[in-house]
Amino acid sequence: MKRIGIADTTFARYDMAAAAVDELKKQGGGFTVVRYTVPGIKDLPAACTILFDLERCDIVIALGMVGRQPVDKDCALVADYGLQMAQVQAGKHVLGVMVHEDEATDEREHAINCYDLLFRPEALRKRAGTGQREGFADAGPVRVK
Amino acid sequence: MKRIGIADTTFARYDMAAAAVDELKKQGGGFTVVRYTVPGIKDLPAACTILFDLERCDIVIALGMVGRQPVDKDCALVADYGLQMAQVQAGKHVLGVMVHEDEATDEREHAINCYDLLFRPEALRKRAGTGQREGFADAGPVRVK
Amino acid sequence: MKRIGIADTTFARYDMAAAAVDELKKQGGGFTVVRYTVPGIKDLPAACTILFDLERCDIVIALGMVGRQPVDKDCALVADYGLQMAQVQAGKHVLGVMVHEDEATDEREHAINCYDLLFRPEALRKRAGTGQREGFADAGPVRVK
Amino acid sequence: MKRIGIADTTFARYDMAAAAVDELKKQGGGFTVVRYTVPGIKDLPAACTILFDLERCDIVIALGMVGRQPVDKDCALVADYGLQMAQVQAGKHVLGVMVHEDEATDEREHAINCYDLLFRPEALRKRAGTGQREGFADAGPVRVK
Amino acid sequence: MKRIGIADTTFARYDMAAAAVDELKKQGGGFTVVRYTVPGIKDLPAACTILFDLERCDIVIALGMVGRQPVDKDCALVADYGLQMAQVQAGKHVLGVMVHEDEATDEREHAINCYDLLFRPEALRKRAGTGQREGFADAGPVRVK
Repeated sequence: MKRIGIADTTFARYDMAAAAVDELKKQGGGFTVVRYTVPGIKDLPAACTILFDLERCDIVIALGMVGRQPVDKDCALVADYGLQMAQVQAGKHVLGVMVHEDEATDEREHAINCYDLLFRPEALRKRAGTGQREGFADAGPVRVK
Repeated sequence: MKRIGIADTTFARYDMAAAAVDELKKQGGGFTVVRYTVPGIKDLPAACTILFDLERCDIVIALGMVGRQPVDKDCALVADYGLQMAQVQAGKHVLGVMVHEDEATDEREHAINCYDLLFRPEALRKRAGTGQREGFADAGPVRVK
Repeated sequence: MKRIGIADTTFARYDMAAAAVDELKKQGGGFTVVRYTVPGIKDLPAACTILFDLERCDIVIALGMVGRQPVDKDCALVADYGLQMAQVQAGKHVLGVMVHEDEATDEREHAINCYDLLFRPEALRKRAGTGQREGFADAGPVRVK
Repeated sequence: MKRIGIADTTFARYDMAAAAVDELKKQGGGFTVVRYTVPGIKDLPAACTILFDLERCDIVIALGMVGRQPVDKDCALVADYGLQMAQVQAGKHVLGVMVHEDEATDEREHAINCYDLLFRPEALRKRAGTGQREGFADAGPVRVK
Repeated sequence: MKRIGIADTTFARYDMAAAAVDELKKQGGGFTVVRYTVPGIKDLPAACTILFDLERCDIVIALGMVGRQPVDKDCALVADYGLQMAQVQAGKHVLGVMVHEDEATDEREHAINCYDLLFRPEALRKRAGTGQREGFADAGPVRVK
């Protein structure tokens, strides 16, 4: 039984975690969800470290919403660096960070990526180099050589 | 008995820690406060590490005031990165950093968040995705789907 | 037998890893490839740490494609910092990061560098100070003194 | 007997460390000074780590002078991040970094802060929230509520 | 017998390491040089960690040349942060990083600094506060007070 952590924030304007959990369950079984809500995005890196160290999670989906104020961009960058530290220190993945208020939602995509990393790495392998990207229509493969 | 560290600075123009302690006590009991004052915001990350390692704090509220000079913004960013390092290294939260001189005060909000993280995680869980943010009127939830 | 990790992403628009593996094999033998595909470039540092720690790789080639959106540049920088953390923590090299969509491809060059670092360090030594660079025609040595 | 490290650079245009040591001695006794001179400000973080790890210093005053060239600002930022790493890794304070050539000198203030952190934490506590800042006339407390 | 690591790159347009080794030998004996060439400047931090951990170097001179493209500046910054991590993690110095193509060469200065840090710390101490800087004519001491 794998343990999937979901870290979200009270700052977000809708329940991003519910959509992620919903999508995870559609993908199949074999996992438990540990949900952890923190005040804002800069609290997510510590939340991930806690989910890895104390809750023994195998992977974490971190769901933050970035505001429109100029200072929010700096917050998001600081949180992003913190999440890199958390991942490298734990040697485990954190997926799905920092949805901007004006971007399309992508919790479901991150949930699928999470499930694939844990249970279906060959699915990611098959999609390697196909231009799948977040928040925009897929660009599709270019022809090379 | 939980231990809550409060790190503040001599640089701030009023006693931010007093307001935070005051609010913490209103939330309930079950904790001791360890207060630690340092000269400026760039000293806060080491202060948090000391509060975690030597004072065995479970969480820290770090209260810094960012000045109006251009160089102050760089200082705040450096301090913020340092606080991410301190949190990820300790696997514990630091809350409430970097009030700008021209922002509304929010020590009380951080104190409540701190108390919730320690004693009432379900309270944060209930507020997840409700758009609660610092220093501005709450934006409120958006309708999705 | 050395172990070479290849981390790539589903975000890339063509199969960058295939070209790298192809070139590696042309250089000689003595190695096994461990391939690991993750969703995007910000997932590469954790992938490298996993390839070092769990897959016991001696070196990793990380292949990411950076998009044209302004936010993509920030992502690439965050990923780059994460890759520095992963390398310094493991004490091992990660090569070949972050091809921009409008740059010439250089998987083959990184594959050769990877092979040289593992098996032919004297080849790199001979090329030291010859102005070999990625994505542009080589500048060639300048005359000094 | 506490050990105070003083790290300075050959790059500075006057002997910043002498002023700091002078002020430290005025504050009282109970400490030994370990002085360590490095070439430039980017060498200060490693110097601090060496002063903590090999020289068993309890605190370090790092004295660097930042030049007027545009590249100097980047150097100062990099050094500043390195100093955060050094502090968080050691769990000890580094005080007083990065005087710009056009700022008023403040070695004495940092020396007093250093002495206070080691021997008179209550002195800092009393100054908390009084608006004391470096390199400018003190702003003084604002009236709140 | 001290061990001095010299990390350089194939990207540089002339053999920077040769000049550094040449100067080191002029300063005196008591050391062995371990040279390690990597493809580019972003590979230098891992090279330094390897020189510290596997080659047991006491200090490293890292010699990189930064190109004229805008992206090169970002690379140099990322490499610089990585070098701070490498130094703080190892508790040892890395000297002499990142010569820009349009700056005067300074390998010799870094070699002398390296020798001084290992064998003649009192020489650096005597130069403290004399305004010695890289790549420009020395500014000389200012008169204070």
